[in-house]
Amino acid sequence: MSIRIGIIGYGNLGRGVECAIKQNDDLELVAVFTRRNPETVTVLTQSASVCNIADIEAWKDKIDVMILCGGSATDLPEQTPVYAKLFNVVDSFDTHARIPEHFANVDASAKESGHVGIISVGWDPGMFSLNRMYANAILPEGKDYTFWGKGVSQGHSDAIRRIEGVKDAKQYTIPVEAALEAARSGENPELTTRQKHTRECFVVLEEGADAAKVEHEIVTMPNYFADYDTTVHFISEEELKKNHSGIPHGGFVLRSGVTGWNKENKHVIEYGLKLDSNPEFTASVIVAYARAAYRLSKEGQSGCKTVFDIAPAYLSAKSGEELRASLL
Amino acid sequence: MSIRIGIIGYGNLGRGVECAIKQNDDLELVAVFTRRNPETVTVLTQSASVCNIADIEAWKDKIDVMILCGGSATDLPEQTPVYAKLFNVVDSFDTHARIPEHFANVDASAKESGHVGIISVGWDPGMFSLNRMYANAILPEGKDYTFWGKGVSQGHSDAIRRIEGVKDAKQYTIPVEAALEAARSGENPELTTRQKHTRECFVVLEEGADAAKVEHEIVTMPNYFADYDTTVHFISEEELKKNHSGIPHGGFVLRSGVTGWNKENKHVIEYGLKLDSNPEFTASVIVAYARAAYRLSKEGQSGCKTVFDIAPAYLSAKSGEELRASLL
Repeated sequence: MSIRIGIIGYGNLGRGVECAIKQNDDLELVAVFTRRNPETVTVLTQSASVCNIADIEAWKDKIDVMILCGGSATDLPEQTPVYAKLFNVVDSFDTHARIPEHFANVDASAKESGHVGIISVGWDPGMFSLNRMYANAILPEGKDYTFWGKGVSQGHSDAIRRIEGVKDAKQYTIPVEAALEAARSGENPELTTRQKHTRECFVVLEEGADAAKVEHEIVTMPNYFADYDTTVHFISEEELKKNHSGIPHGGFVLRSGVTGWNKENKHVIEYGLKLDSNPEFTASVIVAYARAAYRLSKEGQSGCKTVFDIAPAYLSAKSGEELRASLL
Repeated sequence: MSIRIGIIGYGNLGRGVECAIKQNDDLELVAVFTRRNPETVTVLTQSASVCNIADIEAWKDKIDVMILCGGSATDLPEQTPVYAKLFNVVDSFDTHARIPEHFANVDASAKESGHVGIISVGWDPGMFSLNRMYANAILPEGKDYTFWGKGVSQGHSDAIRRIEGVKDAKQYTIPVEAALEAARSGENPELTTRQKHTRECFVVLEEGADAAKVEHEIVTMPNYFADYDTTVHFISEEELKKNHSGIPHGGFVLRSGVTGWNKENKHVIEYGLKLDSNPEFTASVIVAYARAAYRLSKEGQSGCKTVFDIAPAYLSAKSGEELRASLL
């Protein structure tokens, strides 16, 4: 019998989860929950129901793992603890600074109801965190580097769109090749924010908007752009649609460290991702952890977990024997 | 109180384990066991005892985890099941084809005595296996690539040394840049053995040996060299000592795969290592898993485990709270 999966929220991430489920024979999408009128939402999986989120409690015994596909700013801090009362849950909460608080809330709720909740699943937090953690455990004396991109930053694109005179925009975060090479050298360089990444913006102006003023507002924007070398290109709406409608991303996690009685040997561990679709890759990670949530729950475990707490074999559809014979 | 570690076998790997323990405040090397006369073996850790392996049983309650640093051909298949009767054990058994059999032997012995045995720890098998497994679970439709090098292959160096007329030799395995780039492209190319790696040999001849004959024997040697493009350099003993006495290694694990309803998006996951010292890095991984073995044993677990079966957090000296706050 398949593991029955539900999705809350049918945006880019929810659709990515739906596609990832299709690639895993032991998983089945049974229902998508939305705040919209279900009749206005069409999903790709013909066998799946579309339901209003208000009716979710009726699905309590029909879904093994609920995947939450809302945003980290307002949706997940509220939803994950609430739905952990009814279901095993997985989310991709990515506000790094608020993870301890979110963990505590989900843990209390999941423990009380006897469910498993896995939070902050994806690639950062997620696979990047795992690689930082493994590398730190292996090389206790060393230095970590995380580079993002080349890829679209939704937050930075949104920040540009809020500027007066901007009709639409896409922002790419780009790692600086020289900084990457310096990190890879094993020399443990100190790298500033400006040295590590540049930002490239493609902006469509409203008619009559002042390009020079918009550009100045972008490049001087605190937190988002002021600490970076930022390039702004003004393009037509057609060009934006044609050349910048994808959601690629990726990046690199490096740790360089030393070993030996006199710390005489250097080592560099590097993990890199090159992703055509950020939400679909995030969804693929989430779906593997949904399998883990189901299995951990079947074993009688409960409470909040992160990628650090879950043995790798739980993610795979293969048995321990198969994994040892084929991938070890 | 520190976790008390013992080492069996004081070669390159054993010395690497000793150095790695020094970098971890919660671990303490208490004894090194050798088949040699202990009086002829000097270790770097002043507080550690050097003992003959025949006396190991007396240490049953004085050591929390025993690290086995022998070879995979004859030492470990025999030693790991035997010493799992007395201790929690970790080994770096690396004969991939015989892992299922070794697992079964260690599992039976460790379960009977109530110990934890972690086998095949290092980087391949080990960290490379983990990365293959995570990437396969995330991208079920895709293709795996493993490249080794640039680094010294002990097995290939030994094979050259066995040829008549050869006094000493070092063999480097080198990944072919074009093949790496093809794998990174996400186009899922089929790559032959010859396309993926070249082999470079530095050979010191005995006086009067026939260089052309030795070269021919090397490049045509079945299994070791015949399927590769191999370069042979004849050098002096001094040059070998001066330029080729290190034991660097490394390599790359890649998986490229597709996502999307119509498999329209490509993704590439890459993990790479660049190591000045193969045995010291292997030792650093082993020592992190020794910490895990101790903790799993304290929890009452027993039997054989691999890197697939162990939640990442067990490897780190940091608490769950610290890990979530700093590395997630």
